[in-house]
Amino acid sequence: MNGFEQQKAKVALVIGAGDATGGAIAKRFAQGGYITCMTRRNAEKLQPLIEEIELAGGVAYGFASDARKEEQVMQLVEEIESNIGEIDVLVFNIGANVPCSILEETARKYFKIWEMACFSAFLVGREVAKRMVTRQHGTIIFTGATAGMRGAAYFSAFAGAKHALRALAQSMARELGPQNIHVAHVVVDGAIDTDFIKTSFPEIYAKKEQDGILNPEHIAENYWHLSQQPRDAWTHELDLRPWIEKW
Amino acid sequence: MNGFEQQKAKVALVIGAGDATGGAIAKRFAQGGYITCMTRRNAEKLQPLIEEIELAGGVAYGFASDARKEEQVMQLVEEIESNIGEIDVLVFNIGANVPCSILEETARKYFKIWEMACFSAFLVGREVAKRMVTRQHGTIIFTGATAGMRGAAYFSAFAGAKHALRALAQSMARELGPQNIHVAHVVVDGAIDTDFIKTSFPEIYAKKEQDGILNPEHIAENYWHLSQQPRDAWTHELDLRPWIEKW
Amino acid sequence: MNGFEQQKAKVALVIGAGDATGGAIAKRFAQGGYITCMTRRNAEKLQPLIEEIELAGGVAYGFASDARKEEQVMQLVEEIESNIGEIDVLVFNIGANVPCSILEETARKYFKIWEMACFSAFLVGREVAKRMVTRQHGTIIFTGATAGMRGAAYFSAFAGAKHALRALAQSMARELGPQNIHVAHVVVDGAIDTDFIKTSFPEIYAKKEQDGILNPEHIAENYWHLSQQPRDAWTHELDLRPWIEKW
Amino acid sequence: MNGFEQQKAKVALVIGAGDATGGAIAKRFAQGGYITCMTRRNAEKLQPLIEEIELAGGVAYGFASDARKEEQVMQLVEEIESNIGEIDVLVFNIGANVPCSILEETARKYFKIWEMACFSAFLVGREVAKRMVTRQHGTIIFTGATAGMRGAAYFSAFAGAKHALRALAQSMARELGPQNIHVAHVVVDGAIDTDFIKTSFPEIYAKKEQDGILNPEHIAENYWHLSQQPRDAWTHELDLRPWIEKW
Repeated sequence: MNGFEQQKAKVALVIGAGDATGGAIAKRFAQGGYITCMTRRNAEKLQPLIEEIELAGGVAYGFASDARKEEQVMQLVEEIESNIGEIDVLVFNIGANVPCSILEETARKYFKIWEMACFSAFLVGREVAKRMVTRQHGTIIFTGATAGMRGAAYFSAFAGAKHALRALAQSMARELGPQNIHVAHVVVDGAIDTDFIKTSFPEIYAKKEQDGILNPEHIAENYWHLSQQPRDAWTHELDLRPWIEKW
Repeated sequence: MNGFEQQKAKVALVIGAGDATGGAIAKRFAQGGYITCMTRRNAEKLQPLIEEIELAGGVAYGFASDARKEEQVMQLVEEIESNIGEIDVLVFNIGANVPCSILEETARKYFKIWEMACFSAFLVGREVAKRMVTRQHGTIIFTGATAGMRGAAYFSAFAGAKHALRALAQSMARELGPQNIHVAHVVVDGAIDTDFIKTSFPEIYAKKEQDGILNPEHIAENYWHLSQQPRDAWTHELDLRPWIEKW
Repeated sequence: MNGFEQQKAKVALVIGAGDATGGAIAKRFAQGGYITCMTRRNAEKLQPLIEEIELAGGVAYGFASDARKEEQVMQLVEEIESNIGEIDVLVFNIGANVPCSILEETARKYFKIWEMACFSAFLVGREVAKRMVTRQHGTIIFTGATAGMRGAAYFSAFAGAKHALRALAQSMARELGPQNIHVAHVVVDGAIDTDFIKTSFPEIYAKKEQDGILNPEHIAENYWHLSQQPRDAWTHELDLRPWIEKW
Repeated sequence: MNGFEQQKAKVALVIGAGDATGGAIAKRFAQGGYITCMTRRNAEKLQPLIEEIELAGGVAYGFASDARKEEQVMQLVEEIESNIGEIDVLVFNIGANVPCSILEETARKYFKIWEMACFSAFLVGREVAKRMVTRQHGTIIFTGATAGMRGAAYFSAFAGAKHALRALAQSMARELGPQNIHVAHVVVDGAIDTDFIKTSFPEIYAKKEQDGILNPEHIAENYWHLSQQPRDAWTHELDLRPWIEKW
């Protein structure tokens, strides 16, 4: 990549590229011509993903960044905008699904789940929106969950955070839409094909054989689709679930 | 088209191809390799659309069919399946938006709006689903509206029909999903670029300059996207609205 | 009852008093001082209910009326308003819950379920609203169901009708509220203590011992509560379900 | 009050009795025979309310308590349960409605609004639920808002907190319902007759003449109604809005 292209290509920033979904989304936007910037708390672990993208002819950067920390978020956005390019796509992809009885939920965990799944989204969303507004252009996609639509028993913390995230997405979409910034909320409903599911829930993972868990690449394709919608026909919310999932 | 191809290509059936949206959807599926069958009450009026599709190398058939009549619907589906090909995609695209005060709404109009926008969908959906189930394959897309989500003042008839349509889509999605039939509901929220809007609502049509009304081709692209989703990541509902639309 | 009282007391009209719920609602409004008018298709069957109300010191009238027939509805409302009193409360309480696979649902049944559970509500609601509007006063309550919120598998017809009913309630509430007519939708979620449940679903009826099915009198108390809300704090939708019901 | 009665009467605890709504709810439950415990950050300001309740023959206690602080909440619940009586009703009534553009919202304010309107509710709800569960009895009511249903532009923080509160209510209702604890969420949609509205929004307050703003006593009556519902017919959500409110 030479400096000229670097200045012209736009950046897709994926917050939370630590799991299979974030990684697949990063690859999809790299393949689509975006410079891809990715974060997770430990940047070294992003190296294989960066190499995979580069091998495929893409451009990728990894950042260690804790999205719960305002200063780190501000610095991250500033650094990318100053040194790499204009952030035209933001994908927020941090979750924190830990079920618990309301009777046993700790204040610390209740707070942390909200901090990870919602407060981080606010911080990153706001910082990136500030830049996009100056250019009157951009796409922001939040990864939601069924817990954002319905508060199930034992999910007070996660459902609270995901409901709040959905409210954030809606509020931003309504305020920023008329400034040509497309904000969307994707309701992922079902298990995703990840190492975590493979290891911890083998009986769920077994459904992979019949396409019963979500393929991260297929999730990514929908994020790409959203980012490419002309502005006369924007989607603000869509759900994604396997054909055999109960809902 | 020779008989050989005819037997192999699959059919996309668009019920209600009388407006710009239905036409654009038909063209999109023809372009994607489907034999496109289209209905409206007056088949002759479909001729220009058929010619346009054929000129572009596609295959299209037009049918005069009143989707409110069970016999006509059964005959239509039978004829297509027997003589043209297997219906693998069904798009239901009939609306009937006529606002009225509840105090003045007539029983006849209340019934007709439901009959057009909902009962027809049931008839066509059921008949096509019966065929798709035998093949364990297919996609059914219903064109919904904001009135399907919210009953606004003066919209008791249209909102009722569109709510019922949404319920139909959900119920079919839940029953037929595990039979590998993807049923989706698209919430179109905003004016569409049609002759009707151009003529009757010029002040709304004026928003076209700034992409403020929906381009039928862009709607169609989303229908195509839905039909191509792998079954581990199906969308059951998405909204489409212009960037400046209030919601 | 003498003529004087007859002219002063207001009428509560219960459409569909054939089941335990309608009967309990009629009794509650009679107890609250309303002249109670009740309909079912066979008026003779209302006689025990009328006698029970009269024995308790109330005033009640029964009508054979098919709410699906516009002329009968118009005549019913006219007769009550001319000969009995002003209808100040309307309760619509007709259901028609018959599950069926979408593949086997008949057009006739799909239509009839909508006709009973939704079209009737439109006819009665409109006719009564016309009178209430002239007085700028009244309450209209529609008995809804969970099927009005969610289209479950095998419930395409019932969910469609109940979704449409909810849309009707919302649309009427929004149009008529500013005319001082309170329109509310009650989501009854669970089995009700009726002969039908007792006979046909004994395993559900067994939950009665632990208050696991709805007592019609308790439903009625909530309808009464709604009708008595001052207009600065109206409820437009509430749910009612047993404590052990899954939702 | 002597010790005997003290041990037998049950406690209604109102968290956030600093505004007219909390005060009216406290008075309603006192009138209904509950010992009423009330909190606000400055306990002295509760004195007039306590005196009003006592003058009317009720029993009331005021507590300075910051519901955002886990230790204070635990101590409050412990003190009431040890020294006053069993908490059988909990009303959470803290809001924090401060609109702001997403571009200008500070991390501190975003956090504080969530902390007040949601985190506090979690802390109090959990602590009280722990006691109620041991007795298998109780009612918990959360004061919600339209912002809990819809994320409007400029309301990212408040809508986020209120969405999360609604998720908390739903999750608790589903987990605790089968333990005979009734959890409900009340959607207050409209301005309330408070000094704040009178002073800061005189043009809204002017609607009081035509019952266009909510009377706190009428809100309170609905909370009372919820607390008295037999468990075969519980309401988990209801809305309250003035007749002329747009929704």
